[in-house]
Amino acid sequence: MRIALDAMGGDHAPSVTVAGAKLAADEGLLCPGQILLVGKGDQLGSELDKLGLPHKICVLKGDEVELPPERGECFPVLLASQVIGMHENPVAALRQQKDSSLAVATRLVKLGHASAIVSAGNTGACVAFAIRHLKSLEGIRRPGIAVTIEGEDGPFTVIDVGANISPKAKHLLHYGVMGATLQRETCGKNTPRVGLLNIGGEEGKGNVLAKEVQELFRSSGLNYIGNIEGQDVFNGVCDVIVTEGFVGNVLLKLSEGLAIHILHVVNEELVRAGVQPEVINKSLAAITRRSEYSEYGGALLLGVEGIVTICHGRSEERAIKNALKLSRDAVRCKVNSKIVEEIGKLQG
Amino acid sequence: MRIALDAMGGDHAPSVTVAGAKLAADEGLLCPGQILLVGKGDQLGSELDKLGLPHKICVLKGDEVELPPERGECFPVLLASQVIGMHENPVAALRQQKDSSLAVATRLVKLGHASAIVSAGNTGACVAFAIRHLKSLEGIRRPGIAVTIEGEDGPFTVIDVGANISPKAKHLLHYGVMGATLQRETCGKNTPRVGLLNIGGEEGKGNVLAKEVQELFRSSGLNYIGNIEGQDVFNGVCDVIVTEGFVGNVLLKLSEGLAIHILHVVNEELVRAGVQPEVINKSLAAITRRSEYSEYGGALLLGVEGIVTICHGRSEERAIKNALKLSRDAVRCKVNSKIVEEIGKLQG
Repeated sequence: MRIALDAMGGDHAPSVTVAGAKLAADEGLLCPGQILLVGKGDQLGSELDKLGLPHKICVLKGDEVELPPERGECFPVLLASQVIGMHENPVAALRQQKDSSLAVATRLVKLGHASAIVSAGNTGACVAFAIRHLKSLEGIRRPGIAVTIEGEDGPFTVIDVGANISPKAKHLLHYGVMGATLQRETCGKNTPRVGLLNIGGEEGKGNVLAKEVQELFRSSGLNYIGNIEGQDVFNGVCDVIVTEGFVGNVLLKLSEGLAIHILHVVNEELVRAGVQPEVINKSLAAITRRSEYSEYGGALLLGVEGIVTICHGRSEERAIKNALKLSRDAVRCKVNSKIVEEIGKLQG
Repeated sequence: MRIALDAMGGDHAPSVTVAGAKLAADEGLLCPGQILLVGKGDQLGSELDKLGLPHKICVLKGDEVELPPERGECFPVLLASQVIGMHENPVAALRQQKDSSLAVATRLVKLGHASAIVSAGNTGACVAFAIRHLKSLEGIRRPGIAVTIEGEDGPFTVIDVGANISPKAKHLLHYGVMGATLQRETCGKNTPRVGLLNIGGEEGKGNVLAKEVQELFRSSGLNYIGNIEGQDVFNGVCDVIVTEGFVGNVLLKLSEGLAIHILHVVNEELVRAGVQPEVINKSLAAITRRSEYSEYGGALLLGVEGIVTICHGRSEERAIKNALKLSRDAVRCKVNSKIVEEIGKLQG
């Protein structure tokens, strides 16, 4: 079990990525030797030195790399000379940034030196590198991004939130299977309820794609509860919400923006009502903590060999730490082989 | 100026529709004679009697109807023998419910006896009747539903929230023009900023449709600010958010559901922090009031001759009253002829 951390990816890299790795080690989630810090040697070295952390520079030569012991206290630093910008075109990055931290991290997984990638960098590039260089899981045609969010009734998973913006019905069926497997393996739900995000609750609603998907779900063997509408997303009626990437992406980002807006309004009204500032701050902090992305660590790109965890560009060290934990858990519970098994049942 | 109120439409009709009409009259927004209550004579009569309101039964015969004076104190009750169920199939309703309250209300507008329809009934049916029976505005190919919501920086308009789930680029361009006209005429913004809801901020992002629309907007003469992402919807960066009906519908309903969820969490945390129950309740009520749909009264179906205001099925009397006000204002400011003018400039 080793995880390749794109240490140059994200708005606050490499300081928060290194700090996140340290936090994961401090909390005993992973040994330092299990966290491969990928990026520029000088920058990473200086961050690690600042924190007084032992490390060893390693270079991927051909297909081979010599790593310090997995269970050891020394952080491996995997050299990569390039960094993909947050807004760089993913297709261009794929062509031109072959020695970027993301490219090297992906290669480490492809070659079997690591089981997972964690990146807070350019999401599009992360998806592009994974899709290009990692094999698809058996039976899966298009990977999808799954994100787990805290709702009224505990965590639920939305898939896809942006990997696939022109999906076919079959892809959405597979997203349902992958999301359900994830909920079962990581949230302990035996028969996760799967719903299709749609614009009406009744059967047969929605656009052409939605209608076709409803057919497929009904005979899928999943615990399919039918269409769900926007107002039901957070209310706990289902554990897995399947949607096309465009809609899922809007859903995810809108939720984040609206939460911020509502908390501003809450703050104003509590001030107006004369509630003490320290009580307000404490309550708002607790509310934020309960809903924040950093608690979940990131989104998983499901459907490729290897675990790919995509973090928010804004990620702070706690989010990086949680992403490392999420990746570790996904590797440990063998989510990918479980997915292949479930997809096999579907086709059998 | 007369408004046809589908008095049988909505979860709590006809009691709240009649009460909403009374409230609008009590507040001097409209005279009773200007509010045509459409529905079953016995039920409406009994509601009006309960409230001690004078009324007169009127029947649409052929194309004619005899109405009490517009400026008078007597509510006209327009007879309609059928009621469309909230979950009835709109196409079936169109065929079978020709004497429904919605059908009669639509006919009153078509014949020029009323300038606007207000309905809290079956949204799909409301759209279907309007599209079938009311002429399209000159130059408009597909009507869209516009809803105005309170954000960080005041009200903004989202269009379309569900009338058109497989739009063409041209339709979305028209939605931009209609939304901008609405913001200018009803919110007093001279050059409303128009944004396209997309999955990335950079130009050229998104699916095929989004790319095509960006081209059209750039040469439209609108104050087009480019793509906006989900997190920007509520933060005041633009006045008009253009999106396809499927995404807009999810956006609208998700916002409603998420707001409820967050307010539950806020409530829990404030209780935990020991804030007094009466302070919590007062604050939550104020927050709800600031964001609630009922403040805006409803959504406007733009692009047809006549003003069509669609209310939430759950609407209470205040929402109905505000929908009547919204319709009145839209008629008064001649939003439809302004739209035709702006669309003309586009094509000229």
